[in-house]
Amino acid sequence: MPTNIDDQTPTSGGWGAHVCLTPALLPLYNVADYIVVVIDIFRATSSICYGIENGAEAIIPVSEVEECSAYREKGLDYLLAAERDGKVVDGFDFGNSPFSYTAEKVAGKTIVLTTTNGTHALHLSRSAKKIVIGSFLNITALSTWLKKQQENILLVCSGWKNNFNLEDTLFAGAVIEQLKTPGFDPDDAAIAANDLFQLGKGDINGYLQKTSHSERLKKLGIEKDIAFCLQTDITTAIPVLQGERLVKLV
Amino acid sequence: MPTNIDDQTPTSGGWGAHVCLTPALLPLYNVADYIVVVIDIFRATSSICYGIENGAEAIIPVSEVEECSAYREKGLDYLLAAERDGKVVDGFDFGNSPFSYTAEKVAGKTIVLTTTNGTHALHLSRSAKKIVIGSFLNITALSTWLKKQQENILLVCSGWKNNFNLEDTLFAGAVIEQLKTPGFDPDDAAIAANDLFQLGKGDINGYLQKTSHSERLKKLGIEKDIAFCLQTDITTAIPVLQGERLVKLV
Repeated sequence: MPTNIDDQTPTSGGWGAHVCLTPALLPLYNVADYIVVVIDIFRATSSICYGIENGAEAIIPVSEVEECSAYREKGLDYLLAAERDGKVVDGFDFGNSPFSYTAEKVAGKTIVLTTTNGTHALHLSRSAKKIVIGSFLNITALSTWLKKQQENILLVCSGWKNNFNLEDTLFAGAVIEQLKTPGFDPDDAAIAANDLFQLGKGDINGYLQKTSHSERLKKLGIEKDIAFCLQTDITTAIPVLQGERLVKLV
Repeated sequence: MPTNIDDQTPTSGGWGAHVCLTPALLPLYNVADYIVVVIDIFRATSSICYGIENGAEAIIPVSEVEECSAYREKGLDYLLAAERDGKVVDGFDFGNSPFSYTAEKVAGKTIVLTTTNGTHALHLSRSAKKIVIGSFLNITALSTWLKKQQENILLVCSGWKNNFNLEDTLFAGAVIEQLKTPGFDPDDAAIAANDLFQLGKGDINGYLQKTSHSERLKKLGIEKDIAFCLQTDITTAIPVLQGERLVKLV
């Protein structure tokens, strides 16, 4: 299927996947034409996948710490998760660490979550046909589902403060790897992401060691979180946005 | 040298190179802190390098076709080059093909040039410490000069209508390859660009065949131009912006 050369959206009649390398590039896409996969590997979307897998009733992503606080004032029995610059904000129950999203902590609970990058990407994607959440934890379940949809797919890398980052891009490339079939139509960013995944796939943690983001995360003392988030296929739940809530796709 | 984690600009005391993957990401950078290299491999910056090498007195990049036309009305003996969507605009002397920039055509002449992507990137970079023009044609002369500056360097990929493209990214990665020294500080985009260059360097034209851009360019019948633009080190001139004119750096 040929790509429309003046527009990012693949022409009708087939399907393709595009990679949006940072949320700052989202205005280039007609988001309403796509199923969007939001990606924030370290650590928001990994933790969301793990939390939904572990029985969280819903995760409500919000943009601002203040919105998160507002839920406390409503007197609801919600868990409040807020992170800025990779750290838990004072006064909140927890942040983005996947170890906070175990079954004993989250089963049956609703969590209100604000993070630096992931919720930003998610909110900018609101006009999509559907928004689902991806991470290495649920990659094969997600990719299998995506293949069945036969819709155009936009993999949105949350990046770091609108900048490109390698970990989200490598994950996008890993999804492309599973989607590739005859007639499948990737854009240049999808080709690049997939090629970078080919380079890194033997040892993704090792590959990412050379990034500045890795240095930043090390300073935050979250090496264990990183190793956790790079595990493949330990979950099968696909979080999907329904209204303002991320819930398990059924 | 550590990178300032909240800001793209490397901290003082050393030097680094960052890759801006499309002009749409330029607002993320404090452009005034950098020497900017503008990259539009197919074909604006390749043709500019070739034209300046071949004795063009100056090349004046302008954003709009109308600005280009305005120079004709001034009655000056300028060559007017205008391209949109990869084609010469009706009524202009030529467009972006490097074969229009031979010595016999351009020596001693001033050329007014407007293109789809390259001049867009150039105009958005105007606040830089200095703006120079890069292509495979002058890559080693350019990289050698960049290394001597010991300034932070921003490699700006012009892309295609603000979208990421592989050819400009591969060139950025090729420059990174020449700049790499102990203490050199690339960002994630520079690491990715360099890794993609490593994948493609054995046969860059072959590597780029898989891109949709390559399909578009083939439709325009400019395979010869593409092969020309991928030649390495056939020129040594470095075009630099002085006021509104690109001239030979001396």
